[in-house]
Amino acid sequence: MQNATAPRPQTKASLERLFNPRSIALVGATERSIWSTAAYDNLMRFGFSGKLHFINPKGGTFFGAPAATSCAATGEEIDAALLMVPESKMAEVFDDLEQAGVCGSVILSAGFAEVGESGADRQRRMADAARAAGIRILGPNCLGFANFVASTPIWTTPLRRPMANPNVALVSQSGSVASQLEQFAYQQRVGLTHMISTGNEADIDVADAIEYLARLPEPKAIALFLESVRNPARFIDAVKAAGAAGKQVVVLKVGSSEAAARAAQAHTGSLVGDDRVFDAMCRQVGISRVHSMEELVVTADLFARLGPVRGKGLAVSAMSGGLCEIVTDQAEAGGIPIPQLAEQTTGALRETLPALATPANPLDLTGAAMLQPELISRTLATLAGDASVGILGFMFEAPLKEDKRGAARMFIKHVGEGFKTTGKPCLMMSSTFSAVNADARALTEECGVVYSGGGVRHCLSAIGHLLRRGEWEARQTRAAVVAASAQVAGGRPATERQVLDYLAAQGVPVVPASIVDSADEAVRVAASLGEPVALKILSPDIAHKTEVGGVVLNVRGNDAVRTAYDRIMASVSAARPEARISGVIVSPMRTTGVELFVGTLHDPQWGPAIVVGLGGVFVEALKDTSMRLLPISEQDALAMFDELRGRALLDGFRGAAAVDRQALARVVVDIGQAALALGPDLVSLEINPLLADGVRIEALDGLTEWSTVNEQA
Amino acid sequence: MQNATAPRPQTKASLERLFNPRSIALVGATERSIWSTAAYDNLMRFGFSGKLHFINPKGGTFFGAPAATSCAATGEEIDAALLMVPESKMAEVFDDLEQAGVCGSVILSAGFAEVGESGADRQRRMADAARAAGIRILGPNCLGFANFVASTPIWTTPLRRPMANPNVALVSQSGSVASQLEQFAYQQRVGLTHMISTGNEADIDVADAIEYLARLPEPKAIALFLESVRNPARFIDAVKAAGAAGKQVVVLKVGSSEAAARAAQAHTGSLVGDDRVFDAMCRQVGISRVHSMEELVVTADLFARLGPVRGKGLAVSAMSGGLCEIVTDQAEAGGIPIPQLAEQTTGALRETLPALATPANPLDLTGAAMLQPELISRTLATLAGDASVGILGFMFEAPLKEDKRGAARMFIKHVGEGFKTTGKPCLMMSSTFSAVNADARALTEECGVVYSGGGVRHCLSAIGHLLRRGEWEARQTRAAVVAASAQVAGGRPATERQVLDYLAAQGVPVVPASIVDSADEAVRVAASLGEPVALKILSPDIAHKTEVGGVVLNVRGNDAVRTAYDRIMASVSAARPEARISGVIVSPMRTTGVELFVGTLHDPQWGPAIVVGLGGVFVEALKDTSMRLLPISEQDALAMFDELRGRALLDGFRGAAAVDRQALARVVVDIGQAALALGPDLVSLEINPLLADGVRIEALDGLTEWSTVNEQA
Repeated sequence: MQNATAPRPQTKASLERLFNPRSIALVGATERSIWSTAAYDNLMRFGFSGKLHFINPKGGTFFGAPAATSCAATGEEIDAALLMVPESKMAEVFDDLEQAGVCGSVILSAGFAEVGESGADRQRRMADAARAAGIRILGPNCLGFANFVASTPIWTTPLRRPMANPNVALVSQSGSVASQLEQFAYQQRVGLTHMISTGNEADIDVADAIEYLARLPEPKAIALFLESVRNPARFIDAVKAAGAAGKQVVVLKVGSSEAAARAAQAHTGSLVGDDRVFDAMCRQVGISRVHSMEELVVTADLFARLGPVRGKGLAVSAMSGGLCEIVTDQAEAGGIPIPQLAEQTTGALRETLPALATPANPLDLTGAAMLQPELISRTLATLAGDASVGILGFMFEAPLKEDKRGAARMFIKHVGEGFKTTGKPCLMMSSTFSAVNADARALTEECGVVYSGGGVRHCLSAIGHLLRRGEWEARQTRAAVVAASAQVAGGRPATERQVLDYLAAQGVPVVPASIVDSADEAVRVAASLGEPVALKILSPDIAHKTEVGGVVLNVRGNDAVRTAYDRIMASVSAARPEARISGVIVSPMRTTGVELFVGTLHDPQWGPAIVVGLGGVFVEALKDTSMRLLPISEQDALAMFDELRGRALLDGFRGAAAVDRQALARVVVDIGQAALALGPDLVSLEINPLLADGVRIEALDGLTEWSTVNEQA
Repeated sequence: MQNATAPRPQTKASLERLFNPRSIALVGATERSIWSTAAYDNLMRFGFSGKLHFINPKGGTFFGAPAATSCAATGEEIDAALLMVPESKMAEVFDDLEQAGVCGSVILSAGFAEVGESGADRQRRMADAARAAGIRILGPNCLGFANFVASTPIWTTPLRRPMANPNVALVSQSGSVASQLEQFAYQQRVGLTHMISTGNEADIDVADAIEYLARLPEPKAIALFLESVRNPARFIDAVKAAGAAGKQVVVLKVGSSEAAARAAQAHTGSLVGDDRVFDAMCRQVGISRVHSMEELVVTADLFARLGPVRGKGLAVSAMSGGLCEIVTDQAEAGGIPIPQLAEQTTGALRETLPALATPANPLDLTGAAMLQPELISRTLATLAGDASVGILGFMFEAPLKEDKRGAARMFIKHVGEGFKTTGKPCLMMSSTFSAVNADARALTEECGVVYSGGGVRHCLSAIGHLLRRGEWEARQTRAAVVAASAQVAGGRPATERQVLDYLAAQGVPVVPASIVDSADEAVRVAASLGEPVALKILSPDIAHKTEVGGVVLNVRGNDAVRTAYDRIMASVSAARPEARISGVIVSPMRTTGVELFVGTLHDPQWGPAIVVGLGGVFVEALKDTSMRLLPISEQDALAMFDELRGRALLDGFRGAAAVDRQALARVVVDIGQAALALGPDLVSLEINPLLADGVRIEALDGLTEWSTVNEQA
């Protein structure tokens, strides 16, 4: 895609100038347009302190101020221009921008790639011209951006004013979804540092926006709404840059359903990639993927305020047994560990708690805490001391209006006192979704309490992401991702034998096999390999061996081996007299072990990926597989096994030997490396089955598929 | 359980008097207690129009009014007494209630069954005494109830005032969860008719409350929070009564996790039943089970206002493509059909829509609708005309404060106009969780619009329940649930042969088998059954046939059959010379078909249930099963197959014949009937495998387990 390769003049400087402008031109400003007036209202309401220019080819005035007929006509330096003009006028406008030395534009106008091929052409031409002129473009077909930190909105629908100390940045390919998210974030008093709507991404895309935000001090987490990723490699680099800067990326990406792919095609020019590959990428790169707008905001907020949580589990306390049970169920459903407390902890709790309460996790303080709120601070401090606890939660609603007696304030003070002593991340959470207003935010901050109104379900879901990111970070320090292998020289392995030989050469264990060319030799080999054995014809001319009588399985005893050899030779020469015969392969039959499926694929967008599943019906009927982009580390492979629903089969199911997962992980990594070494024309390398029997792991069969015709290697 | 069997004097009348009292006594009223003052404040704020009495053994005054020393001392008729006295005074208080002729009590006090065995004893004694005196008890250890319709709260924490036209009733075993739900319902402007907290349920339990509410006109849906169900049969009857009265029951039940079971035991005396059986019961009885407090309120609200939706799918429209995609993904994840529109519909839409919009479902009206709001009403009317559409949604937020220009009002008016023409259930929903205030509720109602602020995720989840209940109702009309079979006389089938013979006698198809007592006969039978065959020893003394060499499988050819017969006889008589031999069973070997597992169990709480799964690893490693209480209908059985993750195996996987699901359903129903006919001592009847090969369905093996020692039937 062009963004990846085209030269980007003064990238950083011009993005900073665009997103933090000292002078702005509203091009096409008219009081009759709701977009113009909203953009203007926002700038006024935010108190934009830079210079504003109104441009209208007809001149006239805009809310009392004179409008210039062009940017050039203002005779002033303009950092950013918001273009609200029809698509047909765009060439003219860009001439003006170039002449006026404007180097950043935000294009509201629609009628480009989102309407089909002709629009995409127009968009490409416009982007080419802009690039030649050194003008960056946000959009087209976007609602703009808001730099809340600098009180600078170039945004075309009504916005709320910036909040104090914001720490979440928002990037969205859909302007209207960004608006909804902004509204929800406001309702939760989650302060936004920036909101960038990238629209059709003719130039600046999501990766650019993330990269830009990664360099800024204010955003502590970045929330994304994505329809598609135009440049996967740059996207991953940007996410890594954000991670390196301590900013977690949380993403809501549509397209998980087939129907969504249809809907996306209907309304943007985007290509919707394979959602499963995107999911694999997220697990691998450590992106937190969420599935609702509420989850996006709540999760980004908690990352910004609490950060990832290393290892361990969640301890929760509430003044209600029912709530404790709800928390327990939802935590288990979300895979969040609620550890049982050590005896030392329960002992210490018992000393503090009233007689009717049981020291446990979750901890039900019972109604007694209503009368003795100091129970809250004391028990929180004790809970935090438990070694199994990585993060603490207390269930309580911050009031929108304080009661006359200050009861809520008193409870929250005790929560804050408890939290202060823990030295661990702590969260006060509402039990159901609750709006958070300025008073609630102020009260909780005053008491030193991080509070979310997201409710049990969303807060727990966010805590799950915090824990998983912590785990991911721990895994990274252990994980040695093997560098992509150099491409091997030589032919393309095509037949089963060639593929297995290639795998063996690459260090992948393969079932032993000997090529024999006489019945006597077959008997000798069978005896040395251990019976029963399988015999298979080996011929470069025969792909489907069974059909020509070229396979005999489960052979036991010298006579039977001899008979099998002779039968194969007779059948094959009868069926395919012209075929070149290289011999007969003798292999031991494997009768025990777990069959796995390991295959690689080449995603058109994200590149090579690897899929692991349990063999047979598990892969075929249940689609029970796990995927990662290649290359992977052994830690990745181990995590993949854990994602399989049928993973119990690896642990010695029905008295079988437990599979050595570490050894299996090494083999899976090596298969991935072997696939990468075959170069970009490899469509797929499939090992089916890979048989795992305790510590013995062997590829029994392998095949490859190539993107161009394979000329019989 | 005592509730089920004990006589209930004047049940209906006394519940009505308790829940709709004309006179209330606050027993133990003191200004120093937050519970007393909250109960009093609530009564004042609601404007309770009946008579109030304050009782304190020490006399004195309560907020300026004189307190009587006992109920009897008031000399007046008291319908309901709220008891806020220590557990130790309870006997004394009940004497007073009896003397004063009070017939309903609400007990806040704790210290009963929730604290263990001694508390349970005290609770039982108190309940016995009350029953003898004809006094009903709500609680103990409850927060009370509020009859919002009659402006009558007997509730001991602060409550909001009743809303106009409420239609959702709330029953909760946890008082504090009820409080949270009430608060959330208020924030969503979901009006409650009643809120009943049942606490320890010494007398009045959830089933009583549901039954009471089912008879009232106001509640249109009943929301439940449950920790456990004390009397399953009465619970199911009450739910059915509510359903018959057109009131859907929606339930949030904790205990889905193992840890929750622990937590529940810590804080109440309840027995937590097997959550999977509860889930099966819900599917069967048509209860909508939800998993969060928000979902409980949003779902009950939409049932109350829209009712179940018969068949068909959801059409959604929004002014944002991004939102359309989010809806599509979440609908698919929730199993909600978003049908593709008929050509006629898309044609009609194309005539209305602007050029840039695509006629599809979901329908993205694009920003164009901002300028032409009449697009909303027109397209909604067209969408509704599509035969595949059962319910319509429009995404738009009702404002908490109207804007000066009335823009939101104008949009909502157009939504209402569109909805009016459809004749189908319609919902305007917010895109994220949004508070709903009185203005928002009034504005939407004025425009004839049903609005929920639950956001995409929760509204879609609720719509899923509406559709599933509609489907359930349709299924009920087709479903003939076979009445429980009369118990069969005779012995208990114990050996495999006895079980299979019993099943055959009950109409369950069983693999053919002949008992032979000579090698010659074995050869004859094998020829007639079709080879290969299996031979198995038949002896009342031998349970584990394989261990004594009593089984030979896959036998083909006269000689082989003869040899097998002789080998079995020799092995068995060598291994177990004393065993009585009844012969050898000859059966055809089945080599194709799908193996299923069908088993029954007897849940201590919910009674007999049936489990269906795919055989082998599916059941054992994946726990891929579906469950129902017995008896079931064929429709139930068909629904069970649909719940299996591996259901693709039934549809002709890997070229196998597709299983005749209807025939399979009949067999599963018959197995259930066969189990019921074995009476209550049957712990389990297991058919493993039941082999399904196209239309041929056969039990290959069966075993039973009994709750008392089986004396060799």
